[in-house]
Amino acid sequence: MALSIPQDAMEFPESEREFLEPHLPPKDDGSIPISAAPFVTLTFATSLDSSLALSPGAPTAISGPQSKAMTHYLRSRHDGILIGAGTAVADDPSLNCRLVGVGGYGSDGLHGQPRPVVIDPTARWDFTSSSKLFKLCRDGKGRAPWIVTAVKNPPSEKASLLREYGGKFVFMDITTSDIGEHRLDWHGLMLKLKENGLKSVMVEGGGHVINSLLEPQYLSEISSIIVTIAPTWLGQGGVVVSPARRHDDAGKAIPAARLTGAKWYPFGEDVVLCGKIKP
Amino acid sequence: MALSIPQDAMEFPESEREFLEPHLPPKDDGSIPISAAPFVTLTFATSLDSSLALSPGAPTAISGPQSKAMTHYLRSRHDGILIGAGTAVADDPSLNCRLVGVGGYGSDGLHGQPRPVVIDPTARWDFTSSSKLFKLCRDGKGRAPWIVTAVKNPPSEKASLLREYGGKFVFMDITTSDIGEHRLDWHGLMLKLKENGLKSVMVEGGGHVINSLLEPQYLSEISSIIVTIAPTWLGQGGVVVSPARRHDDAGKAIPAARLTGAKWYPFGEDVVLCGKIKP
Repeated sequence: MALSIPQDAMEFPESEREFLEPHLPPKDDGSIPISAAPFVTLTFATSLDSSLALSPGAPTAISGPQSKAMTHYLRSRHDGILIGAGTAVADDPSLNCRLVGVGGYGSDGLHGQPRPVVIDPTARWDFTSSSKLFKLCRDGKGRAPWIVTAVKNPPSEKASLLREYGGKFVFMDITTSDIGEHRLDWHGLMLKLKENGLKSVMVEGGGHVINSLLEPQYLSEISSIIVTIAPTWLGQGGVVVSPARRHDDAGKAIPAARLTGAKWYPFGEDVVLCGKIKP
Repeated sequence: MALSIPQDAMEFPESEREFLEPHLPPKDDGSIPISAAPFVTLTFATSLDSSLALSPGAPTAISGPQSKAMTHYLRSRHDGILIGAGTAVADDPSLNCRLVGVGGYGSDGLHGQPRPVVIDPTARWDFTSSSKLFKLCRDGKGRAPWIVTAVKNPPSEKASLLREYGGKFVFMDITTSDIGEHRLDWHGLMLKLKENGLKSVMVEGGGHVINSLLEPQYLSEISSIIVTIAPTWLGQGGVVVSPARRHDDAGKAIPAARLTGAKWYPFGEDVVLCGKIKP
């Protein structure tokens, strides 16, 4: 049966996939050593002044159409895509993959559709069956989310809705700091996601999630970094990617993190930076 | 007479000059139309999180050796290089050109040595004959600075020291805002520098100067932009390049500035972005 391809499907040419390949989870051919943790790709697009958006919940077109298609190709190459509750609440995101050839976009089933993972310590994301993500599930164009929360008994109607679509709440003991900040144990989280079957996870945002993962104690969780930079300044007051200030043993400020094997690929008006975190 | 080349001289290969040429002041062959304003290049190096330095006065090696050599090549192609008083006070900068072949670095006289221009509204920079810049003047390796100030009668000993080395104070009426910020009229400044003989000016920093020049009313002063980005995050609390928040007529936040004709050149571990400001 010939499947129709929805109008919002995106193409990402073979010629442009090549430069990304060394920075992606290995294709599973049975030869890959089994690790306890998934392959974790940190990926996002910023302005020159490191902003993800003009303000939380203001969808800001920063990068060009080529970069957007790249994001959907990257999604097709990961088992899971991870965002924070702030982004879920602000954006009502689709979190699916709209690449031509994946499930719902020219192919049967949900092949190539990543599992959305939402970090929501207090279970505050007030999703309903009208949320974009569930609409896409009904249309066979995406998977239901897993919601990682520290709430032991999340509201039963939310839990039912998730179950109905094939998603779930995943409990995690997330500590809260003196000033009310949630301290996510990224290592524990990634092990849990692997236990649940995700061999690769793409961390997409927002600012809090990215800055948290870029703290020194979590840097070793990151297998690969793919950052798109657009030639624009959003200006002060945006949602900024910049990790917490880091100090050496003598208390002197030092750079928070550096890439190793950095490769820059001009890409339309934007540039794509790929590399690993320097150990 | 064969001139010795100082050990700190830098090479910048011909092969790497090519990509910069379209973004530089035209070489003066008499055919260039005479304009009232100089050619203004805005150039600086930042981290991924748009920081120039870990903190004011903390010289931070952000970009690699190739990018540093590029900066000195760029200096050789401009009549003047401009910084703010904050940078002068914090860094005791050299502000000369150490490219092999310019005056003091393998060539006679001061050929290719740019004029340092320091924006110092209150004449607070407390230079002496021991400041690096004057030492370089004595060694025939750099020019004395012009100091742009709103102080009508700067201290006479400072004025004498400047005169002795061939520099000067340049008076400009710089207004001060309610909250004590100096509001530099970039258009007036550039006309004044041109009147004083500078056909091209490279604006190098620091954060205040760059963010001020990137405000909407001054963007048209910028002829060319050359930004180097290094694959590192300095972390929160650095000296950040990010222009003031900009709004449209309806009061909605919009991007502060965007480049047009953006070109990205991978350059060692860094990337160099060249372009013009979108009108």
